[in-house]
Amino acid sequence: MRLPHATDLTGVDVALVGVPFDSGTSYRSGARLAPREIRAQSSLIRPYSYFLKVAPFDDRLVVDAGDLDVPPAGSIDHAYGVIEAGLRRIVQAGAVPIVAGGDHSISLPILRAIAEKHGPVSLVQFDSHIDTWGDYFGGRHFHGSPFRRAIEEGLIRSPQYVQVGIRGPMYGEAEDFAFQNAHGVVMIDIGAVKTDGIARTVERIRSIVRGPVYVTFDIDSVDPAFAPGTGTPEVGGLTSYEAQTLVRGLAGLDLVGCDVVEVAPQFDGPGQITSLLAANLMFELLCVIALKGRSSRG
Amino acid sequence: MRLPHATDLTGVDVALVGVPFDSGTSYRSGARLAPREIRAQSSLIRPYSYFLKVAPFDDRLVVDAGDLDVPPAGSIDHAYGVIEAGLRRIVQAGAVPIVAGGDHSISLPILRAIAEKHGPVSLVQFDSHIDTWGDYFGGRHFHGSPFRRAIEEGLIRSPQYVQVGIRGPMYGEAEDFAFQNAHGVVMIDIGAVKTDGIARTVERIRSIVRGPVYVTFDIDSVDPAFAPGTGTPEVGGLTSYEAQTLVRGLAGLDLVGCDVVEVAPQFDGPGQITSLLAANLMFELLCVIALKGRSSRG
Amino acid sequence: MRLPHATDLTGVDVALVGVPFDSGTSYRSGARLAPREIRAQSSLIRPYSYFLKVAPFDDRLVVDAGDLDVPPAGSIDHAYGVIEAGLRRIVQAGAVPIVAGGDHSISLPILRAIAEKHGPVSLVQFDSHIDTWGDYFGGRHFHGSPFRRAIEEGLIRSPQYVQVGIRGPMYGEAEDFAFQNAHGVVMIDIGAVKTDGIARTVERIRSIVRGPVYVTFDIDSVDPAFAPGTGTPEVGGLTSYEAQTLVRGLAGLDLVGCDVVEVAPQFDGPGQITSLLAANLMFELLCVIALKGRSSRG
Amino acid sequence: MRLPHATDLTGVDVALVGVPFDSGTSYRSGARLAPREIRAQSSLIRPYSYFLKVAPFDDRLVVDAGDLDVPPAGSIDHAYGVIEAGLRRIVQAGAVPIVAGGDHSISLPILRAIAEKHGPVSLVQFDSHIDTWGDYFGGRHFHGSPFRRAIEEGLIRSPQYVQVGIRGPMYGEAEDFAFQNAHGVVMIDIGAVKTDGIARTVERIRSIVRGPVYVTFDIDSVDPAFAPGTGTPEVGGLTSYEAQTLVRGLAGLDLVGCDVVEVAPQFDGPGQITSLLAANLMFELLCVIALKGRSSRG
Amino acid sequence: MRLPHATDLTGVDVALVGVPFDSGTSYRSGARLAPREIRAQSSLIRPYSYFLKVAPFDDRLVVDAGDLDVPPAGSIDHAYGVIEAGLRRIVQAGAVPIVAGGDHSISLPILRAIAEKHGPVSLVQFDSHIDTWGDYFGGRHFHGSPFRRAIEEGLIRSPQYVQVGIRGPMYGEAEDFAFQNAHGVVMIDIGAVKTDGIARTVERIRSIVRGPVYVTFDIDSVDPAFAPGTGTPEVGGLTSYEAQTLVRGLAGLDLVGCDVVEVAPQFDGPGQITSLLAANLMFELLCVIALKGRSSRG
Amino acid sequence: MRLPHATDLTGVDVALVGVPFDSGTSYRSGARLAPREIRAQSSLIRPYSYFLKVAPFDDRLVVDAGDLDVPPAGSIDHAYGVIEAGLRRIVQAGAVPIVAGGDHSISLPILRAIAEKHGPVSLVQFDSHIDTWGDYFGGRHFHGSPFRRAIEEGLIRSPQYVQVGIRGPMYGEAEDFAFQNAHGVVMIDIGAVKTDGIARTVERIRSIVRGPVYVTFDIDSVDPAFAPGTGTPEVGGLTSYEAQTLVRGLAGLDLVGCDVVEVAPQFDGPGQITSLLAANLMFELLCVIALKGRSSRG
Repeated sequence: MRLPHATDLTGVDVALVGVPFDSGTSYRSGARLAPREIRAQSSLIRPYSYFLKVAPFDDRLVVDAGDLDVPPAGSIDHAYGVIEAGLRRIVQAGAVPIVAGGDHSISLPILRAIAEKHGPVSLVQFDSHIDTWGDYFGGRHFHGSPFRRAIEEGLIRSPQYVQVGIRGPMYGEAEDFAFQNAHGVVMIDIGAVKTDGIARTVERIRSIVRGPVYVTFDIDSVDPAFAPGTGTPEVGGLTSYEAQTLVRGLAGLDLVGCDVVEVAPQFDGPGQITSLLAANLMFELLCVIALKGRSSRG
Repeated sequence: MRLPHATDLTGVDVALVGVPFDSGTSYRSGARLAPREIRAQSSLIRPYSYFLKVAPFDDRLVVDAGDLDVPPAGSIDHAYGVIEAGLRRIVQAGAVPIVAGGDHSISLPILRAIAEKHGPVSLVQFDSHIDTWGDYFGGRHFHGSPFRRAIEEGLIRSPQYVQVGIRGPMYGEAEDFAFQNAHGVVMIDIGAVKTDGIARTVERIRSIVRGPVYVTFDIDSVDPAFAPGTGTPEVGGLTSYEAQTLVRGLAGLDLVGCDVVEVAPQFDGPGQITSLLAANLMFELLCVIALKGRSSRG
Repeated sequence: MRLPHATDLTGVDVALVGVPFDSGTSYRSGARLAPREIRAQSSLIRPYSYFLKVAPFDDRLVVDAGDLDVPPAGSIDHAYGVIEAGLRRIVQAGAVPIVAGGDHSISLPILRAIAEKHGPVSLVQFDSHIDTWGDYFGGRHFHGSPFRRAIEEGLIRSPQYVQVGIRGPMYGEAEDFAFQNAHGVVMIDIGAVKTDGIARTVERIRSIVRGPVYVTFDIDSVDPAFAPGTGTPEVGGLTSYEAQTLVRGLAGLDLVGCDVVEVAPQFDGPGQITSLLAANLMFELLCVIALKGRSSRG
Repeated sequence: MRLPHATDLTGVDVALVGVPFDSGTSYRSGARLAPREIRAQSSLIRPYSYFLKVAPFDDRLVVDAGDLDVPPAGSIDHAYGVIEAGLRRIVQAGAVPIVAGGDHSISLPILRAIAEKHGPVSLVQFDSHIDTWGDYFGGRHFHGSPFRRAIEEGLIRSPQYVQVGIRGPMYGEAEDFAFQNAHGVVMIDIGAVKTDGIARTVERIRSIVRGPVYVTFDIDSVDPAFAPGTGTPEVGGLTSYEAQTLVRGLAGLDLVGCDVVEVAPQFDGPGQITSLLAANLMFELLCVIALKGRSSRG
Repeated sequence: MRLPHATDLTGVDVALVGVPFDSGTSYRSGARLAPREIRAQSSLIRPYSYFLKVAPFDDRLVVDAGDLDVPPAGSIDHAYGVIEAGLRRIVQAGAVPIVAGGDHSISLPILRAIAEKHGPVSLVQFDSHIDTWGDYFGGRHFHGSPFRRAIEEGLIRSPQYVQVGIRGPMYGEAEDFAFQNAHGVVMIDIGAVKTDGIARTVERIRSIVRGPVYVTFDIDSVDPAFAPGTGTPEVGGLTSYEAQTLVRGLAGLDLVGCDVVEVAPQFDGPGQITSLLAANLMFELLCVIALKGRSSRG
Repeated sequence: MRLPHATDLTGVDVALVGVPFDSGTSYRSGARLAPREIRAQSSLIRPYSYFLKVAPFDDRLVVDAGDLDVPPAGSIDHAYGVIEAGLRRIVQAGAVPIVAGGDHSISLPILRAIAEKHGPVSLVQFDSHIDTWGDYFGGRHFHGSPFRRAIEEGLIRSPQYVQVGIRGPMYGEAEDFAFQNAHGVVMIDIGAVKTDGIARTVERIRSIVRGPVYVTFDIDSVDPAFAPGTGTPEVGGLTSYEAQTLVRGLAGLDLVGCDVVEVAPQFDGPGQITSLLAANLMFELLCVIALKGRSSRG
């Protein structure tokens, strides 16, 4: 978005930051290259949101905080430490982070930094997968488990946690849903979204969350036609227009942080439409943050 | 789908089988590579269908019967013999075949094997083209004529034959529709699907077919945005969600065989979303077969 | 479309012509290769429109007038002269031109040739951008300004000028909309299209235009999932089915010319679905022209 | 090459013709789209050969005879009839054909037309495969057998038949070489080319052939780095410069026909460098034909 | 190579095995998908090596041992344990492993299993990078350090360790070469290979190694024109023919194991020429193993 | 190359600068996106040149001066003014510019800025085209004429101007070579390079130039296998190793500026090997500049 690059975070309202890490991926890796490509595609974005009637750069000091220097190889715990430290710095400076992933495993250390400042938060998760699975190959951390860990660590208030766009693949009712049912997590599957429509879905989301809210947008919630550049694509998803409208529907909520994850540029075509969509969703999230305090989408 | 590979078909309920043949193609060839790529993309599929509430591998013995050893070059009649023999073996063993094509010309020898066992069947054809055209360059068999031949050979009960998603290109009312009108074939064009919606379309389909049903899914019924990897793409088609929902709507019917054809991986992008969609549709068809006997979609 | 190539325009009703020019592009160039690729993809099109019930080649003399010999490099004014002269020849011969661009800057010299023959025209613009911006890097002509220039030059009747599908990116209400508000241009943004539906949008368009109508179709009005091959893609756009239906909705109007612009084949995937869509939209426009005089879409 | 398209062959010296047929392919199909893409890429070619010092269009009447209307599906024998008839028309009119394939199976019907006019010919085959294998899946004709059939039918003088660039894959000495050893075919494998160098290889080729010569250039003789767009690529091949120099080395021979086959554009990258190379090799062959009668290269 | 898939290793001479792991990658990840794609591309390979005059499947029992079940995410130490155990099983059964990586970090656990059986081995490393760097982001293991660790652990006899094709990028003489100079590692940089030629380079390699030899082939030793599908490509490398000839030059040595690593299919073009090259190099290595005991390349 | 971005040029020795302009292109546009992609690919480059034994960042202050703000559309004369002004600022500050194009037309305004400071310069042009053609479509400036204009404007000393790698396409001896023969330009065509070898070619180049030297490297001098991402590719060119070695051979000359032009990323494959090569050649040029004053290579 042609933003000033900043290392000094004093007075910054919103900080965009890249987390080029994909060693939490279970299938096709590649999300580590997303921050670079999302930046490239963001050069088409202009400063005004016609649909939300807001010019976020006019009212807020927004900076590009660059990419965190995450070790790409080695131990995921080590990487988690670097990510948490990087986000802590942003959050403690009073800025709201908008993170470009990386795979979905990065949401856990981000939430650790967020909760340290704000206490347990509401969570809105746009995703095709529940990502509340348990261990994987004997390890506790991968891109399918961050929100189970976040609940276990008390980082999110689970009855104010809503998953939107879920569709699969799955192992069975018991295997997949026992944990989140036990914690009161609300799931709005893709069938519900398509049948009820976006406006009613927005209402449902807004009725569930309260207080400080974290939004995590897994690009694979969107259909592979609109977002082919991702590691674990799931057919039958959101359109890009639905995705934009859902995010715009969050205007007025108290967003304290957000991420857009699982973009994998090498599976995109030459038009790089997935990175372009991610850049646009980051802009929509920025507008939502700039509109904080407004009671509903205008 | 990480299935056991089987050569012995004893006791098998459902057999997935590849038919790597594309010499019936009139335009862009390439569908012969589809079985390999669909298998690769099927590795993301998990055993449970959340939307149909069925775990097909629990109740049924499902095997991967590999690819038929079809001669890629030479005479289409020779290839037809190999395909019919391969399918006969599956069908006569009591298994329901789910075929990964190959181009649409393969449906004719498959239907020959099916009808030999079950008699003439109802046919549900998802397609953008009618595929009931006549001769082509003086030859009787190509991917635009299989269902005219099938009617002529008495393999399908034509008034219980419904085409869904048709949109063109066409030569004229007389040239294109005379044959199928004469045989009572029902056409639900894409305009009807989009205007009426999926639920009503499902009702119409279910009101037409009865008894043993064969389902042929030409991937080009889906819009090229969702399925670019095909030989004769047609813009203005189904979304992937619509395609999934249409197939799920067949639950309860007596499926005796089905195919997913015309996937051409080399026209797909690096994300291979067309093969992924095909693998998912094969899984949906598998779930429909596993639910046989249920009176309607739950 | 496998048309006869013609240099003699006597008696010709409709002339398809390519304008391989993209030096008016502000971001990703490449549209100069579009005419060649659109021709290649048009080989799948057949002579009959099932949805509009018309066989345009039966009633009208339609020719492929080839590509204009536009200088790709140098001064945009020089290129404008060549384009205007080429179109003048077609228009003065009494033929209706269907132009394959090229970037959107070419619409200005085309409108000059059109207005010379027909006087100021109504304009229907399908686009994600308003393209009525002012100077750019100190120059008056680029692909973001043709319709401001056309209004200034009196080529279009601005209150009968409607923009459909607009969504951004934008600089601000004042910066972007002052000019067109002052001239009574009607904007139907993408939110309005999605909320109202295609049928009502068609009614609104038809209520605005009258007399001779020019239609300009910027392929980036369509969502990048359906049309990734373009220079300045915008997420959240029309589907291909919506695009087709909107164009069909123009049947009965007095089309005196039209263009399909901003296709950039190098950003398309291997399936070349953007060029295929462009070829189909050109066919729909041809059918609309062939139906001139019919009072409404049947 | 921006040539005039001709249907009347009177007085024509050289005719370029496309044969869009790939149903003889054993592995990855797609060569049927080659003529279209080779034509597109040939637009970069200019009229003068600096290295052979000849301007072929000045001295010879060269035309583009378009593509033969080969049935893409059905029986290969039927297709062979169409190809042979199309070539007979060119050859009998006194023109030298330069054919853009298509897969290698098309060389057989071309040689039938050539031999009908000129009697048995010398053959120079650039290839990574010997293509003198026997039956395939019980059929006599596919892209691995044309030259065995040509020898059996007496179309080529086998001791004046030389294969250049051969490298595999192979089944065994006996299986692969018995037939051609029995007929005195000379094989210059890729190791010999690389070790001896191009100049000596040219000498060897020229020492083997005499009288009327047919040249068949399988693009897979070139390394996949230079020609990835082919159906059965073989690593470790010629560079493009070596390929050009080998063809230039044929100057002075009595070429009565030639083909460039096995280009499969869908396996090429976005730069389409394989079709570009094929177009250049066709131009080199054209120059060699224009130089007929000159005693040696350069 | 269409080999039998085996789980029982009794009597097996050579076992091909995939290690789909890429969390040791420092730059572009993706090598975890290589085993699947190399298998796909290996279907073009036939049983006879014309250049080495050997039919390895005739004399040796060769099996495809499938892919190791390596955890893709989490700790690299955990993954190393799985890889070492998988290789130990093969090596202890008396089979020679040919491994398809995976990134280069996997060579360390493989060498652990090899050395456990054979003691310290000679090492031939084809690579553009030295891969004897030290720690990385505070971690000991990544794809730039395996051979430093292997020397430190006593798995290789360092004066009998030769690196071929090295060219960069580098930090400085001291930073990059101190360790390997201290251990007597021999480096044949790409300049030496190109200047001396392949035959002399083979001689040099053979003069350095003795006893049991392990060969590690990093595909990025080959020029990106021939092997674009890799994570850290380096221009100015080997041609595919040079790579093949170098490997063939090892015939007669006592190969006890080998790997081909760093193939990243998502950076390959649609022709997948890098995986094809990797499959061919694995076949050449297989032939070299089948020729064990022969004194020199014949 | 992860360089500091600088706007203040005080004390700077070498400035890398991007010129994203491609409206001088005659065929496939796209070079305007090259600076962004070359920067991305340069992240693999490390600070030491093993082959030239130099660490340029240690001895020289090297900065990334960003991209010039060239108007992409409109008049080429206007763009030329912006380019000349941008380069004048660098050159007058005493820095040596290394320019990433853009198409080849940009070399003219660069040379204007260079000659203003240094007087007429020697020119080494690596290219497949002569680029000394005359007018084009009635305009004086495009990417085929910069060096004719430069000679006419007295910016280069033409007998000290050498073209390396020339191969076509051409119109004829008179049309193409009259101008440069009249001015004493030396052409070393690709045949001469391949026959004589790189070492002798370097000697010839060094014998021609003297005094301040400008080097222009058109990436299409390299074969499309190594550099597919370009607008007017020519088969039969340099390998990447030859290109590197030729540039290294310039060490010791007094380079006062240089450019690498005609990279068009959209025609590259997913591995982006052309931009990677361009980044490496820019690094080699940087090393040559850092070695100024050394009398010869090595």
